[in-house]
Amino acid sequence: MKVLIIGAAGMIGRKLAEHLVAAGMLAGRTIETLHLVDVVKPETGGDAVTTDVADLSAKGTAESLVAARPDVIFHLAAIVSGEAEADFEKGYRINLDGTRDLFEAIRAAHDKDGYRPRLVFASSIAVFGAPFPEKIPDAYHLTPLTSYGTQKAICELLLADYARKGFFDGIGIRLPTICIRPGKPNKAASGFFSNILREPINGEGAVLPVADDVRHWFASPRAAVSFFIRAAEIDLDKVGPRRNLTMPGLSATVGEEIEALRRIVGEEAAGRIRREPDAGIDAIVAGWPTDFDAQRAKELGFSAETAFDEIITVYLEEETGQSAA
Amino acid sequence: MKVLIIGAAGMIGRKLAEHLVAAGMLAGRTIETLHLVDVVKPETGGDAVTTDVADLSAKGTAESLVAARPDVIFHLAAIVSGEAEADFEKGYRINLDGTRDLFEAIRAAHDKDGYRPRLVFASSIAVFGAPFPEKIPDAYHLTPLTSYGTQKAICELLLADYARKGFFDGIGIRLPTICIRPGKPNKAASGFFSNILREPINGEGAVLPVADDVRHWFASPRAAVSFFIRAAEIDLDKVGPRRNLTMPGLSATVGEEIEALRRIVGEEAAGRIRREPDAGIDAIVAGWPTDFDAQRAKELGFSAETAFDEIITVYLEEETGQSAA
Repeated sequence: MKVLIIGAAGMIGRKLAEHLVAAGMLAGRTIETLHLVDVVKPETGGDAVTTDVADLSAKGTAESLVAARPDVIFHLAAIVSGEAEADFEKGYRINLDGTRDLFEAIRAAHDKDGYRPRLVFASSIAVFGAPFPEKIPDAYHLTPLTSYGTQKAICELLLADYARKGFFDGIGIRLPTICIRPGKPNKAASGFFSNILREPINGEGAVLPVADDVRHWFASPRAAVSFFIRAAEIDLDKVGPRRNLTMPGLSATVGEEIEALRRIVGEEAAGRIRREPDAGIDAIVAGWPTDFDAQRAKELGFSAETAFDEIITVYLEEETGQSAA
Repeated sequence: MKVLIIGAAGMIGRKLAEHLVAAGMLAGRTIETLHLVDVVKPETGGDAVTTDVADLSAKGTAESLVAARPDVIFHLAAIVSGEAEADFEKGYRINLDGTRDLFEAIRAAHDKDGYRPRLVFASSIAVFGAPFPEKIPDAYHLTPLTSYGTQKAICELLLADYARKGFFDGIGIRLPTICIRPGKPNKAASGFFSNILREPINGEGAVLPVADDVRHWFASPRAAVSFFIRAAEIDLDKVGPRRNLTMPGLSATVGEEIEALRRIVGEEAAGRIRREPDAGIDAIVAGWPTDFDAQRAKELGFSAETAFDEIITVYLEEETGQSAA
């Protein structure tokens, strides 16, 4: 089987690629080629791996990616929320038009020779916008409050329509906020959710800009990879025409994150968190969803962590080689 | 004030134009110019009226329509559901790209000189797709089962994002099925809902292809015009960021339509309906919404008929010059 990952140099794309290299299989079939594409060179290596640097929104890129007729396409390429908000045209060009170009290239190939790949699209809980019920049900409407969320919601609609017409076997998965993000602290408004765990684990200080009772929706990078694998292998007849699914996750408060850190790593680590309230970040976070009833995805075999201790343990295992204290 | 209607030759566009010519006012201001545009020449005349034949999806059309800086833009132009389903590319080109061209032309004018019109977009209950709860709430998700519905849902998302960014003051209104459509019977799957009333009123026979207990969601052409007028004048601060509203309507069965015909026009008229079940039409109609709880729109001052007798009376008054028997 031929697998293509677009956006393979990003945090999740890289972990997905590494998983596929290690497994050598997807949906019960041997992976013969694993084509990794991003706007910066993907670093994952392996016997089946080929890499390319390409911008999906550039003319001709989508056609050239589809030319090899990959059986499974994972589409994770996007510019992030902050950049899409700051640069309206770039956000629509990359996050909407790039995706539409990909879908159109697949449709052209379908019309030519019946090509019909599995397409897994990385969507986001940014498709939702406040106010929310306490738990957001699967049938809740999408009223994004950012251009990024709007672009993801539009791609979900396109995906469902192209799938309905039989141009590809598409499925969209709405990822929770991924925690603990490895690497360095970044300036994303959501960065602190990971920073306050990762930095203390690594012996560094971290700033907490919001109150301990702020609640959010999380899954580990390992759970995120498992969502993509499940989405690639699931029987889509069981999913039906509603092809965009809110992934399961863990609803937890910042205070619960810190309690888990204390339990798993120790009091000293928890002591490295400095509270520096930031009204700006507080206001942004107040518009984010806090809890979902991801019933459909759970019934369809997607699963995530159910306690923050597990999320911390995943980080220790994957990024530090340690196990829980 | 300068008013532009795109799609002014369609049934609702024409009635909206006639209403504005007769009123001479909109949102408390005198209408100085009323620019009517469609792919066929709009027939409405009047002192302030200018007409143009233009395709919104053709290069340069949107810019030229925006050049006069209309204060209010009513955007009703679209190809219908059946055509969008049969011709995938044409549907996306006209119903999605044409609308996006319009939005982009307004954004360019906004960036140039601060232009910020009121934009009223005609959406449709086709943005919803079965299965449904008994009454569809305002917060129900959009899972369209047609390309037409997908295109309308995408335009709704774009509208909300462009409005959020301040490029225009946008509002989208999801129209119920309009009944009684004047004119000749057409081949739309929904045509029978009007045919079984209009034809008997005019002394002609009509075919009913579904069972009497089929339920659907209706408003008269007069109510539809009132929705556009209300949308043009409403204080959008009261609407908030969720700019796409399900319009009020009347949930009624075919049997209730016929009972109303009998009451308002007479037994003889009701006797002109022939029952010829059509499994194909029955299957299509089974996927359509039957009832909404259009709470937000009602609270915001939109209103429609509450009994089918009123819907028939509107037809008699507007199309035949008769009043109820």
